[in-house]
Order: sequence, then C-alpha cells, then structure tokens
Amino acid sequence: MREPVAAELLFPDRSTGENLAIQLARRLRAAIEGGTLRAGTRLLGTRQLAKRLGLGRNTVALAFEQLVAEGYLDAHKGAGTFVAEVRALPQRQRATDRPQPQRVRNAAASRIHFQIATGAGPLRPGIPDLSRFPVAVWKRCARHALAVYDRDMGYGPAAGLRALREAIATHVRQFRGVTAQPEQVVVVEGAQAALHLAALVMASHGDDVVVEDPCYALARAAFETQGLTLRPVPVDAHGIETGRLPASARLAYVTPTHQFPLGGALPIARRLELLAWAKRADAYVLEDDYDSEFTSRAQPLPSLQSLDRDERVIYIGSFSKTLAPSIRLGYLIVAPHLAAAFRAARASTSLGVSLHLQATAAEFIERGHFARHIRRMNAIYERRRATLVHALTFEAGVPFRLGPTETGLHAALIGEAGFDDIAHAVRPNGDRLIPLAHLCVERRDCRGFLLGFANGTDDEIEQAACELRKALSGWGGSMTAP
Amino acid sequence: MREPVAAELLFPDRSTGENLAIQLARRLRAAIEGGTLRAGTRLLGTRQLAKRLGLGRNTVALAFEQLVAEGYLDAHKGAGTFVAEVRALPQRQRATDRPQPQRVRNAAASRIHFQIATGAGPLRPGIPDLSRFPVAVWKRCARHALAVYDRDMGYGPAAGLRALREAIATHVRQFRGVTAQPEQVVVVEGAQAALHLAALVMASHGDDVVVEDPCYALARAAFETQGLTLRPVPVDAHGIETGRLPASARLAYVTPTHQFPLGGALPIARRLELLAWAKRADAYVLEDDYDSEFTSRAQPLPSLQSLDRDERVIYIGSFSKTLAPSIRLGYLIVAPHLAAAFRAARASTSLGVSLHLQATAAEFIERGHFARHIRRMNAIYERRRATLVHALTFEAGVPFRLGPTETGLHAALIGEAGFDDIAHAVRPNGDRLIPLAHLCVERRDCRGFLLGFANGTDDEIEQAACELRKALSGWGGSMTAP
Repeated sequence: MREPVAAELLFPDRSTGENLAIQLARRLRAAIEGGTLRAGTRLLGTRQLAKRLGLGRNTVALAFEQLVAEGYLDAHKGAGTFVAEVRALPQRQRATDRPQPQRVRNAAASRIHFQIATGAGPLRPGIPDLSRFPVAVWKRCARHALAVYDRDMGYGPAAGLRALREAIATHVRQFRGVTAQPEQVVVVEGAQAALHLAALVMASHGDDVVVEDPCYALARAAFETQGLTLRPVPVDAHGIETGRLPASARLAYVTPTHQFPLGGALPIARRLELLAWAKRADAYVLEDDYDSEFTSRAQPLPSLQSLDRDERVIYIGSFSKTLAPSIRLGYLIVAPHLAAAFRAARASTSLGVSLHLQATAAEFIERGHFARHIRRMNAIYERRRATLVHALTFEAGVPFRLGPTETGLHAALIGEAGFDDIAHAVRPNGDRLIPLAHLCVERRDCRGFLLGFANGTDDEIEQAACELRKALSGWGGSMTAP
Repeated sequence: MREPVAAELLFPDRSTGENLAIQLARRLRAAIEGGTLRAGTRLLGTRQLAKRLGLGRNTVALAFEQLVAEGYLDAHKGAGTFVAEVRALPQRQRATDRPQPQRVRNAAASRIHFQIATGAGPLRPGIPDLSRFPVAVWKRCARHALAVYDRDMGYGPAAGLRALREAIATHVRQFRGVTAQPEQVVVVEGAQAALHLAALVMASHGDDVVVEDPCYALARAAFETQGLTLRPVPVDAHGIETGRLPASARLAYVTPTHQFPLGGALPIARRLELLAWAKRADAYVLEDDYDSEFTSRAQPLPSLQSLDRDERVIYIGSFSKTLAPSIRLGYLIVAPHLAAAFRAARASTSLGVSLHLQATAAEFIERGHFARHIRRMNAIYERRRATLVHALTFEAGVPFRLGPTETGLHAALIGEAGFDDIAHAVRPNGDRLIPLAHLCVERRDCRGFLLGFANGTDDEIEQAACELRKALSGWGGSMTAP
C-alpha cells in the first residue's frame, strides 16, 4: 500500500450499487491474490485509507475485518494490518479426464440402466394408471396436512411419523396379512430406498446376496452399489427355484407374490422351503411386494411375511404402484429385534422424508381413501388384464406365450430362441419394449419382453395389444385369436 | 375328503359376512396345514363339494383356484384336484436373542447417539428459530405447487426437478459464491442423505476419510456406516489443521466456514492448503456449509467450492437451518465430471424426494421468499449472537471462554480441565447441554459444551444465557460482566 498505484486500484465505483465495504474487500482480495499487494506489506490505517478513498472509516474497518477473518490480512495489535501469506490461486482445471471413482466404475460395469422408468405408451411397465389417481382427494388431504407446519417444524423421527407408521401397519394387515406393530415400520422415499437400506443393514461388503434370475434391475443396482456379490437363482413359471438357494448367502431378494419380471406366484411349499433355507443358512429374506394388492384372484396370495415364524422376512412396500410414483413414499416392515438397527441406519443415511408428505399419506389412508382406491383400481386392472390375455393368447405351436397375468400390473411375453430380435423390432404405438434379456443376471435362455397393462385407458391398452399381436404375426406363423 | 369329517369342517359360516370363497379357501388351507387333509388326497369335484356344502359351484371353483395358485392344491386335468405336499408350518419363534447383523454392531460400537436433534430449550443447538418460519408463505407456495399432481404423477428425475435445481444453483451463486450449472445439483432429503451419498460415491469400503476432531457426530456415523476408516485431524480456533492432513485419505469432510462444533473460520491460506492437499493426494473434499448464510460479517466467507480450481470440492447445503428441519430437503453440488456418477448412485439408493415438496421449494426460492427470509433472520440472529457474547464473555483468568460467534447458529463454550463436570451439572432452563467431548473422535483435550442461540425468542435466549452465566459462576471464581 506504499505504492500509490495500489490505492488507485482500490478506488470505489459507486455506480454499481455494490456495498462499499464488500467492494473494497473484493478489490483488496484480488490485489493480494494477484500479487499486487505482497505478503508482509503493511496497509495504511483505516483512518488514512478511508480518507484517501473517500470512504467512511467504518466501511474500511469492515472490509479489513472481513479479510482478516478470511485470512488475507493479519492484524497485529498496535503494529497495524499486514498482507498475509497467500499463494497464488491455481488455474482452474477441468477434471473430465480424471479417472472416475471406483464405485462409479462398478456401477458402469453392471450396465444397468434406469429402464423401468423410461419409455412411454400404454404398454410401458412399472407405472399405474396415473389418470385415475384421486388428485382432488389427495390434494384435500395435502391441504389439511399443511397443519403439520403449525405443530412441528423440527426433525421428525427418522423412521417416520407415528401416525403414518400406524396407518401403514393397518394397511398391510388388511391387504397383505402382515402383522406388525408401528415400531416395526420404517418410512422411506420408495422401494429403492428400502432396498438400499435393507442391504446396508443386513449385509456387509462382499457378502453374497441371492437375486432372482431374471430380476428387477434396480434391485440389482442397489446391491451392487453396496458392494454385495450377486448369487442369481433361476426363476421358473412359479417363481424362484428354492431348491437351488446357495448356503453362503446372507440375504435373498425375492418377489414371491408376483415375480418380477416373469409373473409367477410362489406356491406355499416353496415359500416354506425359502423360509426353512433362511433359518438353516442364518440368512434373511427381502420380500418385495410391489404390486400384489392388485389381483384377479379371490384374494391376494398371503405375503411371505405372514408365513414367517422365525422373523427372517423383511417386507418392502411402496406407494408407487398403489398410488403414483411422484408421491415418493415406501416402507419396510422389519422384525422387532431388527427395528433399532434399521432406525439407527436410517438416521445415519437420511433423517427422513417430508413431514407434510407423511401427514398427507397418513390422512389419506386413515380416512379410507387408500383402500377405496385400491379396490376401484383392482376392478379396472382386471378388465385390462383380460384385454391383454384376449389379444395375446396364442395357439399351440406359436413360438411365444403370455406369462401369468393374475396379479399385478405387468406380464411377460415369453418367446423361443430368436425372440430377442422381435423385442427390438416391435414397437406398438412407438413403445420401446423392455427385453427380458436386459433383466437377466447370468441366464441366456430367457427371451421375450415385458408388457405393462396399467398405463393407459382401456381402449389404448386394447389397441396397443392388438397392434402388438399384428406385429408379432409376422414371426408367429398362423395365429388365430383365442 | 373321503372322510365326511373334512366336509363338516368346511361348512360355511354365513353369519360372519366373510366372502364364502375366501372362507372356504381359509378352511381348506388350515385343514392342509394342520394335517387333517393329507398330501395326495383327492378332493371332491367342485360340483359335488358345492352341493355338499350348500355353496355355488363358482364359489368352490374360486376357492380351489386360489389354493392351486398358493400351492396348497394340485390340479391335474381330467384326474381331479389333490392336496399338495405342504409340510407343517414351524412354530413362531422370537428372534430377540439372535446376534445382531454386523453393520448394527459397528454402529453400536461407535456409540454415536442422535444428539443433535434431542434436548430442548432455547440453548439447544442445531435448530433455527422455528417460530419465525414463514408458515403462511410456505403454505401458499405448497398450495400452488399441488398443481404438480395435475402435470406429472410419474417418477421425476432421481436427482431432482429441474426447476428446483435451477433455483438452488441461483441461491448458492448469490449467497455462497458457488458456481454451478443445474446439472451439477443433486437434490436429497437433507445434509445427512448428502453425506451418505457422497461417501457412497467417492470412497470404497475400508478407505480412509479425514474428519475434523471434534466433528459433527452424524457425519461420523454416515462414514462409519459405509465402512470407511476415520482419520481425525485436530481443529484449532480457525478450523482444521491442514498441515496434518494424511496423504492416505480419499476424502476429507470439513466445515470450513463455520467449524462444527468449535466455530472457527478457515483462513484463505489453509483453504488453499486443503485444496492443494486434495490435488496432491488425489482426494476430494466434502464441504458441509450448513449454516454460513447467517453471519455478522459484511458478507459470508466465500465457500471453499468457490476457490476450487481443480474440481475437488463436493459442496453440501441444507434447508434445515435456513428454513426448518421438517422440510426435509438438502442438496449436493458436484463437479461436472462427477455428476453422472452421483445421479446413478442416487437412483440406486433412492428414486428421489416428493415432487410436490420440490415444486414448493422451487417456488419459494424463485419468488424471492427464501432470500428475504435469510436476510430477515440474519438480523435477528445477529442480535442473539450479541446477547450471548454479552452474557458469556469472561474476564481473563476465568477458566472458560466463548468460541467464535460471527457465523451460524451456535457457539462453543470452551473450558479448561475439569470443565466436563460442569457440562453435566449445568442445565439452564432444563436444557441438557451437549458436551464437546461427545463430538471428539480421538482428542481428550477438548472440554466445554455446545450452545445454540437460535431456538427461542430474544428474551428466552437472553434469560437462558444469564442463567448459564450464573450457574457457571460457581466454577469460574470472580466473573464480571464485560
């Protein structure tokens, strides 16, 4: 600051409207970073500098304080204010060429894409009929639930609001035969967060986890992200082949009531075999019960959790199929001896979801809107299921067949060798169909693709199914309607 | 079913109102599970059984179908329906004695309790002034944002709605000098979820992670849950001692603008040293910028991210201090070359937070309510900061002193040996104060406790601070107000 040039550089520009102290601090900072003001230089006193720059003394003092706090200046009582040692800031460098972190390479290697939520059209799987979502009722509950902000703006319990956990416990008891106290419920943002949390708590890095083959791709991603080793077990028309479960696994991920993607329902004998395996192997079973509220049967098949006598089942539910994905809400039901562990792990990874959303969902369930919506949609989906079956049941000898359709919102169209090509070529209504091959872990014999029958009006789904049938007729030889 | 006794057991009870097919299925299931109906038994045909039980034939057929689907019965075309092989269900067994999963033992071993969000009273740290939250304005935004349900009920982007990511990018540029495109923003449920995600992406199991000592207990929990090894680096009055950073770490977790819990602000020379270390060690820096929007300085200290020329800083922000914890919203800002990896990891662990909440926050920020609220609260917190300083500045020779208070919503009261006892004994207004010792990793020389000055009215905070001063006077010898 001995050189007059420095003071000139600091001269304020009043035309910008910028706070003068902030402006002075910025200019001093730049002069220090740029080397114009060298380390050790003693600055003029605040009074002198203020006079020189035509500023108030307080303005200069504020700027000095700021730069002392930031470490650009050192204040020595009595001796004055000095420029601190600040080495020149390095040049900005783009890091695009830098190797990606390990974890990212793993994820890329698994070639798992976010397929379920992509694509469009009435045969797109994974999405319920969003046009039938009771928007008005939900909004009313949401407006009521805004009162939560009057009561509590603090952290709620990381595992979820008591009212919502009670409502969920009632719902799963009623619809899925699941017996659980509210203390066993952990509220999360959806099934994906539930899978991640369960993998985190129940398995350690490098542990084996059983997955169905083929299986839900994002479950696979959740386990691989946690560093678990996949142990695929083949699925037949009824679900996972329980005779082939490896003794080494710590965890088995299953979709017993509506296998994803092939659609089978695991018979009671295999359910018991699965539970017996878990006990023998000292393992746990992750039951993903994502859409079995919807079924053409007299009642949904009982959940695996309801058969579990040894507290080996961790049950996962989601509102993404029963209501809508945009809600972003799901839950785990865990055995009492695991509840504290899940609560602790949840608090370590997330302090929970929006209290307002939780209060909204609790009210929606408590007032019976949820049960009513499920019953209403069940009737609608049953019609569409029948439409799909009608359009896509083929004669014997035709090289593809529709998998089970009794439960849930999708079915697999399973084909013989060469069918993969069809999946790529056929685009009814512009849909990009998801080949089953993309959902396989080790298998190479699983051909066909996945069809949703929820995401459109009855007419749209009928039309898309008929177009698909027409497109398939080029491959199927002589096909006659059933 | 040859034995007439079986048919009697199946006789329907019409008084219960239960669906008759479901009732019949339940009774058959119980008879099979209980061994009354043995494997291989051929059931009566649906017509005969219907007649015998006084039921419609469809009812019996429905019950049979259900049990075939569940695997209790086998249907052989032409030959009839047979009881399947179902072994007896095992007795229910409580699992309370079973060893806890590995991960849980780790978490328990770390003795980390969820301290920050517990306790009560005006000196409770970690909570902003919830009574000043602009409830009415927020509710108005929330009501407007309900329109999101009219537009889109599907999965939004796992990394967050575009509108909110844009609003956040604007906010951090304005308040924290952070330069980021919306593509670099990842929306999560709060800082805890951000810490977890960053640890997941940027470090592998067993990697070293630098933490400040003392440090935020829940950050420690996030890293330990991921299986990372803590490498504590001591903190002095200015923040982390950057000369002691170990070359081995892959990640360093820091609170450079307002050290948690001691309150120091890292000077520019150390900030640059930290960034140079990251480059040299090929490591990344997690900047947790949890409350530095609030400051008595002319302007907040610039974020570490704004100095980063090598794309080594991952910036974490939260709405829990600037708005309220119940909102459950936070974000990461990552370098462009890491954005895809963070998006993929986010989708593997959670498909994102409520679209309605995101739309609400976006509107709240866009309309300027957020910036206004921060400016208003900054003035309020400045008064309370002054109140705390006035009440708790001690003469030289008194064995405790208040740490830096210029920034944020808490300060540390730091004491000499024996001060731990005071922290346990002193309970102004019934507050349970958090001892700094609980936040230490390896250090044994860090004595004192943590004081918030945000969570109450001006009067309440003044009163609590004066009570605390009075309580301390028993330990501090002669104390005179400053």
